[in-house]
Amino acid sequence: MERVTLLAGGVGGARLAHGLDRALRPSSDAPPTTAGPAGSPHPLTVVVNVGDDTELHGLWISPDIDTVLYTLAGLNDEERGWGLRGETYATLEQLARLGEDTWFTLGDKDLATHIVRTARLRGGATLSAVTWQVAKSLGVRPRIVPVTDDPLATMVDTPSGRLGFQEYFVGRQHADEVLGLHFEGAESARPAPGVIDALREAEMVLLAPSNPFLSIDPVLAVPGVRDALTGTAARRVAVSPIVGGAAIKGPAARILESLGHEVSALGVARLYTGLLDVMCIDERDAHLAGPIADLGFEVLVTDTIMGGPDGRERLARELLGTRA
Amino acid sequence: MERVTLLAGGVGGARLAHGLDRALRPSSDAPPTTAGPAGSPHPLTVVVNVGDDTELHGLWISPDIDTVLYTLAGLNDEERGWGLRGETYATLEQLARLGEDTWFTLGDKDLATHIVRTARLRGGATLSAVTWQVAKSLGVRPRIVPVTDDPLATMVDTPSGRLGFQEYFVGRQHADEVLGLHFEGAESARPAPGVIDALREAEMVLLAPSNPFLSIDPVLAVPGVRDALTGTAARRVAVSPIVGGAAIKGPAARILESLGHEVSALGVARLYTGLLDVMCIDERDAHLAGPIADLGFEVLVTDTIMGGPDGRERLARELLGTRA
Repeated sequence: MERVTLLAGGVGGARLAHGLDRALRPSSDAPPTTAGPAGSPHPLTVVVNVGDDTELHGLWISPDIDTVLYTLAGLNDEERGWGLRGETYATLEQLARLGEDTWFTLGDKDLATHIVRTARLRGGATLSAVTWQVAKSLGVRPRIVPVTDDPLATMVDTPSGRLGFQEYFVGRQHADEVLGLHFEGAESARPAPGVIDALREAEMVLLAPSNPFLSIDPVLAVPGVRDALTGTAARRVAVSPIVGGAAIKGPAARILESLGHEVSALGVARLYTGLLDVMCIDERDAHLAGPIADLGFEVLVTDTIMGGPDGRERLARELLGTRA
Repeated sequence: MERVTLLAGGVGGARLAHGLDRALRPSSDAPPTTAGPAGSPHPLTVVVNVGDDTELHGLWISPDIDTVLYTLAGLNDEERGWGLRGETYATLEQLARLGEDTWFTLGDKDLATHIVRTARLRGGATLSAVTWQVAKSLGVRPRIVPVTDDPLATMVDTPSGRLGFQEYFVGRQHADEVLGLHFEGAESARPAPGVIDALREAEMVLLAPSNPFLSIDPVLAVPGVRDALTGTAARRVAVSPIVGGAAIKGPAARILESLGHEVSALGVARLYTGLLDVMCIDERDAHLAGPIADLGFEVLVTDTIMGGPDGRERLARELLGTRA
């Protein structure tokens, strides 16, 4: 079984991670391993964006990590796309009563993750150590690693000024035009343990169909990560988050446009030129296969919409099938 | 309207505070004031024990303060005696799933208080400032003050060694014999702002029918508090937590016995000799009125069981009626 590393943001990353977890699962369907990061036999490593992380009510929230964890644990709310299934909001309602600003929705079960994470971080644990512990508790088998344990905050420049990511994304529902992005702390952030090795030693590195600016760029902004991707012998494959000229989810299309890029899988491919070997685009964008190939990519044209677990696994198997 | 200060632990203190709040309420039933500690026009100050406070899951829990707050806000669970009415436990169940030790029951709504308190304490606020803010949010009108903003932890010496209060009380369900009590940090704790003035300037100081060892002693252990009580011109009145030779609630009877005291209102009165003017005992203990008077107390004999709000208010009015 080959070693695969996925660079991921939230929902798109979580879905592809889920498909890869299923596709790479031993056919014997062995029981979940309890091995740690060092000796994990699972072939999949997911390197997750932390630029969206924020502190609310004194609790440390890592939305992309949690989306990946919850999805791989089978606990996620599929319809909504984020958070846990069957959530209640008793704590949040009481927080509002106590005068807290509750624009960021936090479910009661979800809060347990933030409480545990915050307590352990304050106790001196790293984000990657806490992530591993939560993953283990939830029965998640692939290795989930934040790209860095150091502070890294995506800041969004808009006509209203520079906004913190969650203020832009949740608070103002990504309605502002994005003039630029800044990854605060990125210059001095160090890759979390295992991140560089996961890129160097993989046979395949995948870029999830996540937002190139908000999810992938902050991962590549951590010194050493882009170089490891450039230098790896792994097959490097990206899935376009733009299908038929629109984003599957979120503001990717609008950001591409406002930053002067073509809103298409071709526009995405241009962003990744020189960095990857294969672009995977949706059947609806088959007409872009030629122009993308002209940029130097191999092109995989398939159904990239990952409806349910089976669709995710199918896409994962097709991507894994692009090995040279 | 006279100024009244109540020294209180948890349930017994909360119930008497509730009765006093009703008894002292202006007959016009004015809307809740939003005035702060400095200028609060409410005549009641409740000085609350913090020896039971503890940190769990990285959150700071002040059980006695919360019991008083929730009861005065009319949000408490009357049947259970602690916590909020209509609680759910989604976060706690998820915390257990994440490997946390969940022997201490924390409801979803209750957690909001702990989250807010912890965030503000970490932000540099004092416990009394946070308490005031939560009280205001919940519409609590009397002034609720922790006896100290400094660390003070009740430690319980048992045949199994020294235990933290919540380990003794909740974790081991106060089954251990109590050989002694130690208030860690008390020597260097300073009374919270307003505590000494509340004792000095009151016309009446009440000791709630709380556990003398676990609730009242740690309040008196803060340097300056016992002296202020001894030196105040206020009428000083205690309500016995022992009725008919048994505690209304909790381990008071067993602790009296194991520390060599008589398990009766007389035994309690002996503990408070020289410190107070009036002992209020239950009708069932009317036969002890003589021996208690012999200790130098005036004695009020009445129904001290505070069943519901009306019973609390009645007892409060009788206590307020003992002014010289």
